[in-house]
Amino acid sequence: MRLCEPLAIEDYGVQPMPDASPPKWHLAHTTWFFETFLLKPYLPAYRPFNADFEFLFNSYYNGVGKQFPRGERGNLSRPTVAEVRDYRAHVDAAMETLFGQAEDEAEARSLLGLQHEQQHQELLLTDVKYNFGHNPLHPAYRDDPGRPGSRPAPRLRFIESGGGVREIGTTSNGAFAFDNETPRHRVFLEPHALANRLVTNGEYLAFIEDGGYTRPELWLADGWTRLHSGERWTAPLYWRLKNDCWREYHLTGLTQLDLDAPVIHVSYYEADAYARWAGARLPTEQEWETAAEDLSPEANGGLTQMFGDAWQWTASAYGSYPGYEPLPGALGEYNGKFMSNQMVLRGGSCVTAEDHVRPSYRNFFYPGDRWQFSGIRLARDRDL
Amino acid sequence: MRLCEPLAIEDYGVQPMPDASPPKWHLAHTTWFFETFLLKPYLPAYRPFNADFEFLFNSYYNGVGKQFPRGERGNLSRPTVAEVRDYRAHVDAAMETLFGQAEDEAEARSLLGLQHEQQHQELLLTDVKYNFGHNPLHPAYRDDPGRPGSRPAPRLRFIESGGGVREIGTTSNGAFAFDNETPRHRVFLEPHALANRLVTNGEYLAFIEDGGYTRPELWLADGWTRLHSGERWTAPLYWRLKNDCWREYHLTGLTQLDLDAPVIHVSYYEADAYARWAGARLPTEQEWETAAEDLSPEANGGLTQMFGDAWQWTASAYGSYPGYEPLPGALGEYNGKFMSNQMVLRGGSCVTAEDHVRPSYRNFFYPGDRWQFSGIRLARDRDL
Amino acid sequence: MRLCEPLAIEDYGVQPMPDASPPKWHLAHTTWFFETFLLKPYLPAYRPFNADFEFLFNSYYNGVGKQFPRGERGNLSRPTVAEVRDYRAHVDAAMETLFGQAEDEAEARSLLGLQHEQQHQELLLTDVKYNFGHNPLHPAYRDDPGRPGSRPAPRLRFIESGGGVREIGTTSNGAFAFDNETPRHRVFLEPHALANRLVTNGEYLAFIEDGGYTRPELWLADGWTRLHSGERWTAPLYWRLKNDCWREYHLTGLTQLDLDAPVIHVSYYEADAYARWAGARLPTEQEWETAAEDLSPEANGGLTQMFGDAWQWTASAYGSYPGYEPLPGALGEYNGKFMSNQMVLRGGSCVTAEDHVRPSYRNFFYPGDRWQFSGIRLARDRDL
Amino acid sequence: MRLCEPLAIEDYGVQPMPDASPPKWHLAHTTWFFETFLLKPYLPAYRPFNADFEFLFNSYYNGVGKQFPRGERGNLSRPTVAEVRDYRAHVDAAMETLFGQAEDEAEARSLLGLQHEQQHQELLLTDVKYNFGHNPLHPAYRDDPGRPGSRPAPRLRFIESGGGVREIGTTSNGAFAFDNETPRHRVFLEPHALANRLVTNGEYLAFIEDGGYTRPELWLADGWTRLHSGERWTAPLYWRLKNDCWREYHLTGLTQLDLDAPVIHVSYYEADAYARWAGARLPTEQEWETAAEDLSPEANGGLTQMFGDAWQWTASAYGSYPGYEPLPGALGEYNGKFMSNQMVLRGGSCVTAEDHVRPSYRNFFYPGDRWQFSGIRLARDRDL
Repeated sequence: MRLCEPLAIEDYGVQPMPDASPPKWHLAHTTWFFETFLLKPYLPAYRPFNADFEFLFNSYYNGVGKQFPRGERGNLSRPTVAEVRDYRAHVDAAMETLFGQAEDEAEARSLLGLQHEQQHQELLLTDVKYNFGHNPLHPAYRDDPGRPGSRPAPRLRFIESGGGVREIGTTSNGAFAFDNETPRHRVFLEPHALANRLVTNGEYLAFIEDGGYTRPELWLADGWTRLHSGERWTAPLYWRLKNDCWREYHLTGLTQLDLDAPVIHVSYYEADAYARWAGARLPTEQEWETAAEDLSPEANGGLTQMFGDAWQWTASAYGSYPGYEPLPGALGEYNGKFMSNQMVLRGGSCVTAEDHVRPSYRNFFYPGDRWQFSGIRLARDRDL
Repeated sequence: MRLCEPLAIEDYGVQPMPDASPPKWHLAHTTWFFETFLLKPYLPAYRPFNADFEFLFNSYYNGVGKQFPRGERGNLSRPTVAEVRDYRAHVDAAMETLFGQAEDEAEARSLLGLQHEQQHQELLLTDVKYNFGHNPLHPAYRDDPGRPGSRPAPRLRFIESGGGVREIGTTSNGAFAFDNETPRHRVFLEPHALANRLVTNGEYLAFIEDGGYTRPELWLADGWTRLHSGERWTAPLYWRLKNDCWREYHLTGLTQLDLDAPVIHVSYYEADAYARWAGARLPTEQEWETAAEDLSPEANGGLTQMFGDAWQWTASAYGSYPGYEPLPGALGEYNGKFMSNQMVLRGGSCVTAEDHVRPSYRNFFYPGDRWQFSGIRLARDRDL
Repeated sequence: MRLCEPLAIEDYGVQPMPDASPPKWHLAHTTWFFETFLLKPYLPAYRPFNADFEFLFNSYYNGVGKQFPRGERGNLSRPTVAEVRDYRAHVDAAMETLFGQAEDEAEARSLLGLQHEQQHQELLLTDVKYNFGHNPLHPAYRDDPGRPGSRPAPRLRFIESGGGVREIGTTSNGAFAFDNETPRHRVFLEPHALANRLVTNGEYLAFIEDGGYTRPELWLADGWTRLHSGERWTAPLYWRLKNDCWREYHLTGLTQLDLDAPVIHVSYYEADAYARWAGARLPTEQEWETAAEDLSPEANGGLTQMFGDAWQWTASAYGSYPGYEPLPGALGEYNGKFMSNQMVLRGGSCVTAEDHVRPSYRNFFYPGDRWQFSGIRLARDRDL
Repeated sequence: MRLCEPLAIEDYGVQPMPDASPPKWHLAHTTWFFETFLLKPYLPAYRPFNADFEFLFNSYYNGVGKQFPRGERGNLSRPTVAEVRDYRAHVDAAMETLFGQAEDEAEARSLLGLQHEQQHQELLLTDVKYNFGHNPLHPAYRDDPGRPGSRPAPRLRFIESGGGVREIGTTSNGAFAFDNETPRHRVFLEPHALANRLVTNGEYLAFIEDGGYTRPELWLADGWTRLHSGERWTAPLYWRLKNDCWREYHLTGLTQLDLDAPVIHVSYYEADAYARWAGARLPTEQEWETAAEDLSPEANGGLTQMFGDAWQWTASAYGSYPGYEPLPGALGEYNGKFMSNQMVLRGGSCVTAEDHVRPSYRNFFYPGDRWQFSGIRLARDRDL
């Protein structure tokens, strides 16, 4: 609710593209999650707020029932924002009751519900940015805090790793993890090296100016096709060219392009093409995770911007780990059924809740998606 | 503005299909019309409210400039409703100034602007109905006034007309008319007959129950194709079948189907198929207009429901009258450039401003359009 | 069959766009017409050649049964051309038998079948032209006979007509006419004038060079939209620009553009835009037909190129005449069910059978269609 | 050419869906490969057969130049089959000349050209099957040899493997391998088990009869979406239900479904859903390849149908091996640029050239593709 405070009522309802759900929908759906998976099964006295909401705010759980079509969420002027707030209050109150009497399974699900809400907090900001960033008036979501001048990006270096048999996946230390991070298992890595930082806007601009978007030899075939369909990409999603000068839309409004900041809002195809142009490649998720584990907490090795700057596309298709078991029942649809056609991103961005990310966290999006805060870390085979 | 009073702020912004513009957009566009065609050319001191609005709220006037894409009007959470109200107040005030000093041409254009606003008043209600009528919650736009019980429809009769050379088109009595109603000209009509009233829901239900939507011999080829693409029509747009019982959505909410009320929200294809099933045809616009002229003011001849119940599909494709001249400049785009692929409707519906319609008024929509308050009057060649 | 002699076997099967059916399909469908509407109902001993053909070669007769999807006709490598020839021979032989014993109704239908075949003879050439004209090798269908040098087009003049009550539609002289030409009926025409000849390539080139395709004020709204979707028209369908020089594909191959020949292969939208640019309009079908009747046989009045040069777009939407009755049964689908969204063309082109056209003949196509041999005759209101 | 002998001329040209290229195109494109990559660079005296062919028969090599649109290959009635045969003879003759003087690089490329032609031999049969199998006449490509009665499939068993560090990728024994099989590298496998044979039609029928296509919990989200779009899958691609009896189209014609034969022509989505229904999963390509290596030549371990029955979907997304380097120049587009959105298949089918497949061979298709001879081998984590 705090994230929504800067919004006008009008901003809660729009869905400028199918993937960018309205803020109102995020507010209602996360509440629906608690109602559906906690209150209905575990609180016998619970009375649903509105019977139609089971259908209206179900995202994709076939095990729960039919869903209102995803692409039409922006067409629902009702319920109003006030009604959604009442819905949240109704469910929050019932959750308080449930906490007083909860069983273990309900506790575990509550934790999942909170993690789920954290994910939607990020998506809400991602989607608000899409809305405002595509409105010709370019409204700001929040004031620019008067950022300190961007510091020059350090020189790009590659940090080597020796390879061998390693382990990835969540460690059994009791902390929360999604099912897709399990089980921890062994992998074999060939020697390789990861870049010490993310690719900057300045570096990406050099790629553009070198004809990056016009040279098919740099692109995956599907990326090249995508490049020439629909919107015709020529730059990252929020870059705007005006009078030969690049500007970038942020949640604080349109500003001059910061050449030292990490490039964000690029697709996997663009990340991959950039890497090829730069004589490098993207890291695998195994390489990324083992490097991230080495970081935490004391060892560092020179890697920066691993968490909290931008999601980092990996070269790994999103799939199941050996021995993976989805959660039982409809909650098994949370992660498992998306294990095709998507690529893994690692790290976490500036709009991700700080305590939400961890080395084993697997984010996943389609290779053409650009509306997430997605950037690029380079990798290399070591003998290059 | 009065029509918008029952709306929540959330209702002003949605566009559930490309043709159903958001109420906020109607409010802004009608104001844009006065700003663009009156204030900018005729009030030298006028300062535009917001330079971006020229683009944002231009509907289709290429002579004015580029237009924000029609299908994305619902994605504009900004300007807010309050800002649009300010825009209207700004323009209204300037119009007052202009009225103090107006030339003839400006006066004529002001009248056009008012007629334009009346058209959008109707469209606003049409579009609100589409939004509410497609929301699973089926909210009501206004309370049901407790309508008097529907009166039984009178027996269907055909009123004959002798044909011959007649005149249609606006008469030069000084009253307002759109350019597409001019010039008045002669036509030759064969003898024919028009039904005394509109087709009722009950009659249309008989068509459905007789397999009307499943018998290709009743349909135009393009209608049959349309019937089987997209939404798969099986009844008028706002009919809802639940537990084997038909209900109909009105601006007052979902109610039992009134069998004696005129059927509304049917496409030209459905009107044409119904007429064929009934052994009749649709009237031409020439037949309709000459009959309507005969009505007014004293002669009646038995025709009812000519104005104010439902727009009545005619068998006439929308085209230019002999000698037609569009208005000069960008205003010439108002009506003339749509003279292909659309069918003429005559009469006016329950949401049309009462003083807006007249015998010569030509409304026009695509034959597959159903979201207007469009109904059916039958006609016959006389020797049948 | 004679028209197919220049074809390679490979040419019989292709369908480069849904509207351009393969020659093999034309050969089989016209035979299907005789089999379905003559042999099956009137020749009791008739044995169908292949039971699957009833479905495969039914074009659009719902009254006969389901149809193989139109857009996939080019996917049928079988039956082979030889098998289709056998099919034709089988049906031809049975028709000979039928002729020996035919009733009146069968005779009337045979005549319809022959007219139908004549229509498909034209379509076959139209479709072969589309195929060859879109093949990068630009093969010729037939040799160029060494045409005499094109004669200079005469000066454009407008031939006036006085208007008044006239008659159109087929005359009851016993000659064949399609149902859509009936009944003959009276119309009222305002005074007007028709151009003495068709618009030439040279004149149309001047329209292009004057920015005709880039000026929205010249275009119908639907035409302007069409212009910017899909193929992006910038010239008639078979004009090819190479090294700043326009050439035109004909059935005899690619040749230099003949500036004095009539422009052909333009859509209604282009014809309408050209007319607006030229300060004129298109004729209505009533104006065209009455002028054509005046021509035949002795009076001339100065009109040329009325028949046999190019189909001429009229400003008239294709619809039914007052009192129109389609043929009974499935044959009623021949013309009547297409009476929406299409425009009437009059005259006949260089690939139309000479004895096939007449003043009352109504051809009809969608306003965006360009693959027919369609050209432009201008008209004017007389007082211009 | 021998594979084409059963074809009628008409069969060489059709392309019933974009992926199923015409036989004529396969014949020309494989010849184009030799012309483009061997003759033009290495045989100075070579004269191209037809300059337009460089464009017409380029499949996807941007490094060579523009390509004729893939989806329109079926629209090219010219060049004729005879002309394509002449093209092949022309290039074959020049290749003989080249072989007399070839350098090492040319020899390596020739070998690649032959492997390329072998791939297209398989595709040609795959595409012919698609064409014939979707023609309502269901023609046979070749006679049924009177197959011996299908033997009962052996009992399904799972063969265990211990896991650990293994190697995959081509071995450096000098035999031909594509670049995507390199470099050989180490992987870590968890213990697992592979089914001893492929899933049979009978087993797959049980999945269908158990509601397999109607239970969302069995399907990947993208698969469930695909299932409900377009063709609406309810069975493998060539199964045909008639009078409650399943038949299957083979290149020998329509026959009764053989319950003991491997199920083929299923998509990855169907293979994955079947595996989930069966309480198993698909093997990874690493698991498959190490098992295949263990097979060859002497060890067997009970695995059958590894090569020559059906391509076997793996759970592995197609990507690059660590240290992968594509071939230099335009030939680098052969495999590398397709490394996104596709899944790896292993083994080889009944239409694959026998000496073409090997343990390290990686075939790849989109998860929704069904027109390849693709089947299912199950796998399990060992502790199940």
